[in-house]
Amino acid sequence: MTLKEEMFHIAMAAREAAKGLANLSTEVKNKALINMARAIRKENKVILAENEIDIKEAERKGISRALLDRLMLTSARVEEISSGLEKIADLPDPIGETIKSWKTPNDLEISKVRVPIGVLVIIYESRPNVTVDAAGLCLKSGNSVILRGGSEATHTNVILAHLISEAAEEVGIPRGAIQIVRKVERKAVKELLGLSQWIDLVIPRGGEGLIRMVGEFSTIPVIKHYQGICHTYIDEAADLKMAEEIAFNAKVSRPGVCNAMETLLVHRGIAKKFLPSFSKRLLKAGVEIRGCAETRKMIPEAREAVEDDWKTEYLDLILSIRIVSNLEAAIAHIEKYGSGHSEAIVTDSYRAAKNFLQVVDAACVYVNASTRFTDGGQFGMGAEIGISTDKLHARGPMGLEELTSYKYVIQGEGQIRLK
Amino acid sequence: MTLKEEMFHIAMAAREAAKGLANLSTEVKNKALINMARAIRKENKVILAENEIDIKEAERKGISRALLDRLMLTSARVEEISSGLEKIADLPDPIGETIKSWKTPNDLEISKVRVPIGVLVIIYESRPNVTVDAAGLCLKSGNSVILRGGSEATHTNVILAHLISEAAEEVGIPRGAIQIVRKVERKAVKELLGLSQWIDLVIPRGGEGLIRMVGEFSTIPVIKHYQGICHTYIDEAADLKMAEEIAFNAKVSRPGVCNAMETLLVHRGIAKKFLPSFSKRLLKAGVEIRGCAETRKMIPEAREAVEDDWKTEYLDLILSIRIVSNLEAAIAHIEKYGSGHSEAIVTDSYRAAKNFLQVVDAACVYVNASTRFTDGGQFGMGAEIGISTDKLHARGPMGLEELTSYKYVIQGEGQIRLK
Repeated sequence: MTLKEEMFHIAMAAREAAKGLANLSTEVKNKALINMARAIRKENKVILAENEIDIKEAERKGISRALLDRLMLTSARVEEISSGLEKIADLPDPIGETIKSWKTPNDLEISKVRVPIGVLVIIYESRPNVTVDAAGLCLKSGNSVILRGGSEATHTNVILAHLISEAAEEVGIPRGAIQIVRKVERKAVKELLGLSQWIDLVIPRGGEGLIRMVGEFSTIPVIKHYQGICHTYIDEAADLKMAEEIAFNAKVSRPGVCNAMETLLVHRGIAKKFLPSFSKRLLKAGVEIRGCAETRKMIPEAREAVEDDWKTEYLDLILSIRIVSNLEAAIAHIEKYGSGHSEAIVTDSYRAAKNFLQVVDAACVYVNASTRFTDGGQFGMGAEIGISTDKLHARGPMGLEELTSYKYVIQGEGQIRLK
Repeated sequence: MTLKEEMFHIAMAAREAAKGLANLSTEVKNKALINMARAIRKENKVILAENEIDIKEAERKGISRALLDRLMLTSARVEEISSGLEKIADLPDPIGETIKSWKTPNDLEISKVRVPIGVLVIIYESRPNVTVDAAGLCLKSGNSVILRGGSEATHTNVILAHLISEAAEEVGIPRGAIQIVRKVERKAVKELLGLSQWIDLVIPRGGEGLIRMVGEFSTIPVIKHYQGICHTYIDEAADLKMAEEIAFNAKVSRPGVCNAMETLLVHRGIAKKFLPSFSKRLLKAGVEIRGCAETRKMIPEAREAVEDDWKTEYLDLILSIRIVSNLEAAIAHIEKYGSGHSEAIVTDSYRAAKNFLQVVDAACVYVNASTRFTDGGQFGMGAEIGISTDKLHARGPMGLEELTSYKYVIQGEGQIRLK
């Protein structure tokens, strides 16, 4: 079988399974999720052994410690993956929900009813837990899923996908509902991206290169999950104690995630009062500071921030700082360099807060809170498949609802259209 | 300026205008819509003169009567276009609406707020009223629009776009909010479809060839508006009088539109009772019938329906008829040949109705009503930019709400994330 044929067969099987999945009862879907959790828990050792193969290979290739950490599973992590599925089983089933309903003047009863999207492709990097999380969310929302993880996690992903798809089938989920692409060639992805007749949506999660490639080659709709270049702007009217806590949390609590702050913008009027003491706390926490010329006058330890710094998602204990003359300048900086993910203002000015919330074009805009809250779980969605930086279909954290479409159900008593 | 540069400038200007548009008051937008209506009404004669040029050219090329009819404007049609804008002004402004809001356990106030998408490209064929309708809907929903009509309507489209963009600017709409692509080359469209950094969404409306081309070349998200291959299935348990009225309405009331029936499916159990008399009425109305072998035994006037007939959107007084053995066979036919637009069952069986509504995967599924109701106006949306046959972002009739995205607004009092 050629690579093209192989991808075609995967897509066809997913499409066929999607028909059955769309009409499964909540009970069967939940049973499957619980059985999947059990299978993973039971095969903990097998999973860790396969993960060990990936880890050894990765070490041999000399990949970074951060990447190794993402790739590595432990007994505790396997247990987390397993209980994640049980949590998805506990979430309400979005399918069949009446989103709204109304009656027309001629007594047609129209309901807008939630249905699955159909067949999804999830393309991701490194972290093997995504294999199981994504499969669980897609199953619960009635979608078939084709998984494509990073090549460095192949052994781990393949065993995980094998275990959960078997466990799902055991309790009545159609074969083909959960599949993984075993071929590591990039060409496999390109073949998939051309199969728009069988696949409804592609969600790429990962580096900019991956996402651009997917956007360029796909004839299938794509919801992009770019990482976040998130800003916190400390306004002239900010409570500086609050500002310090929020900015520190946004940068330091978990620097390697997409909702962490990368650039701090500070109003000139309070910079001298705010930056010297705050920077001491950052430096003590091991944060490297890169600043504009004015910032460097106040923080001698700061390196010079160059143009590239404003464009970079460090995902690390590095922070760029820029002093701005006013709110408008802060907004202009965010408009130019932000990735449309999460942006925050700290202020006590009603006008500044209102203006910032109105004008800043991002999935999540905050007043007086840390950008670290951009997360499906924190938002109360139960779980998320990722955070969309697109504006079509879904923006921001994507939970079960965002993995659905809808149809209009119209019930009549013989109505015909008169004009 | 090369074609590439020209398209780039259009996209840049649209993007720039979108920033201003997103934050305009409802009052200014409505003033603009009313001024646009006034401009069109005032320049009625100029518009008709430009339309005359297109008509003459079309006649010279020998285009079909149906196409000529779509292309032709009259004083009454110009007035309709004008009052269409006033109706859009009367619709509620979707922008700024709080879709939902809630409080998290740590007292963050989260609101999901409706915002414009940004920059839209609308690609359409023949009917010049789309130029104005689309511009009006995009303006009201705060989006910039780049219009690209059929080449046969160029003179008409250009004068209409000129009048409304001038009228909009007069009352404060940013320049670039409404633009038209004057270049007739197909290459112009291809250039636009590559500008994903500046354009957020493409909506193609028209023939299959156009839509496939857009889907293939676009790096920008596309919401497809395929035309409709709509079925009506007359179940064994149907009220046959009601069935006749519904099917007749679905086929004959306006055969040239996408929500008209193209194929009638009839349960074998009632075919003999239903078809002979119903076919007389169809034939009398000038409908050409193409049927399966069994149908032809009951309707001697019917030509043989070949495989292609089940796949064809006639948009004309032609109907294909197939006799099926049961509900499942009807659903299988729809699954194979339907375009996901509008599908209807006529039945008095609760089980059959429920099953049909559940299983048939289309934007609109009907029980005991004519598919002709699939229309933004009939659904109570006020107006529509088209009917999506896609499942992502918007499905079925697309009104103002479907031309929006959302953002999360999070208001805190200093909250930071603890884990």
